[in-house]
Amino acid sequence: MLLTPELFPVGYAPLRLHAELDFATLPSIRERLADIARTHGIGLVYSLPAPAADGGWHISATLLDAHGTVLLDYGKVHLFGEEERKAFSAAQAAPGVVDFNGIKTSLLICYDVEFPESVRAAATRGAELLLVPTALSAGFETVPQVLIRARALESQLNVAYANHSGHEDGCDFLGGSVVAGPDGSLLAAAGDGAALLFAEISTERVNEAREQVPYLRERRPELYREWEGSAPKG
Amino acid sequence: MLLTPELFPVGYAPLRLHAELDFATLPSIRERLADIARTHGIGLVYSLPAPAADGGWHISATLLDAHGTVLLDYGKVHLFGEEERKAFSAAQAAPGVVDFNGIKTSLLICYDVEFPESVRAAATRGAELLLVPTALSAGFETVPQVLIRARALESQLNVAYANHSGHEDGCDFLGGSVVAGPDGSLLAAAGDGAALLFAEISTERVNEAREQVPYLRERRPELYREWEGSAPKG
Repeated sequence: MLLTPELFPVGYAPLRLHAELDFATLPSIRERLADIARTHGIGLVYSLPAPAADGGWHISATLLDAHGTVLLDYGKVHLFGEEERKAFSAAQAAPGVVDFNGIKTSLLICYDVEFPESVRAAATRGAELLLVPTALSAGFETVPQVLIRARALESQLNVAYANHSGHEDGCDFLGGSVVAGPDGSLLAAAGDGAALLFAEISTERVNEAREQVPYLRERRPELYREWEGSAPKG
Repeated sequence: MLLTPELFPVGYAPLRLHAELDFATLPSIRERLADIARTHGIGLVYSLPAPAADGGWHISATLLDAHGTVLLDYGKVHLFGEEERKAFSAAQAAPGVVDFNGIKTSLLICYDVEFPESVRAAATRGAELLLVPTALSAGFETVPQVLIRARALESQLNVAYANHSGHEDGCDFLGGSVVAGPDGSLLAAAGDGAALLFAEISTERVNEAREQVPYLRERRPELYREWEGSAPKG
């Protein structure tokens, strides 16, 4: 399984994409990516714009199996900053979960994973592995180093978080991609340059973590919904 | 403001408390603690058993002002492990928020804070400071070092987390108390021995963090409730 960053095949910059990308080329880009998965016999997560019901575009992520077949699509729910909101529409659907080689696998994109609620939605649907294309700016080291580890630990799943590095279209990216295990440990971590990270994960380690401290079983979702409903609207 | 660990005035061990504590002595213990706050002119958070509506007992925490007046009571919602569940009843109410010297202040207890949903309930009610008495065992370093920092960062508030240290009633405590700021940084951290930690916090730093990345404003609670409602029951 190869996980690539947010909007990696076309470049991240939202306003440039909006102004310059010929969206009619997207199907052929998707075909090309499916060819790569097929040719190399490897699962692949890529992120591209995808048509939204409102006539605009979502930032999406797609999981392909090693035959190039689409297993799962996801649209980014939490857009980050003015530029993303100008160029894209926010999606609304909860992350789906599919079987990939025996591992229950889900997708989120970038800012989504900073919200514990999105990771919970994947975990309560059975996810053991969460694959997250991202485009995180320099200066936000605490996101991979603290938040991603916490997301993995509190929902006891593996989180792979793949970022851009270097400079592009006026963006200065952090690099710093990580893979965190279901006990919150770092299984792999990149520096600030380009890198290819490897990690091995398993359902066994997920189950061990969930036995040790049963967070998902001991949640009280009926109370949370009540609390959310009675909170002052902000 | 002095924050003390979970059940500190009577000792943590749930089964010993259940078997040996004379619950009739609790009002005089509370009086004694109010005297300490008054005498020293200091706010105080203590944790004691408190009567539950079902005739049993909650693990509770109480915030006193510097006159010894009760500003806030909270009952632990997430009980941890068999012994706590044998000796105590789980509470159901969302954490309240009160003004303490101009800082909006809330309470959670131990295992509660490991659930992002409980911290969100405090944050969406306006909390800038979350005070958490705890009784965390040795071996769980990732709780203060990863989860508490993430709770502070994702809800952009200060979290003070006060643990027991050493051995007591067969428990081996971690120590490792921390105070985390609204950017996820550690403002103070204890080693594994007894310690008195100091930290200064302010509404300004909370507001700065919330300006930089508006997590609380950009949550999508209506979606989360829908997602929670449509998740498989497990």
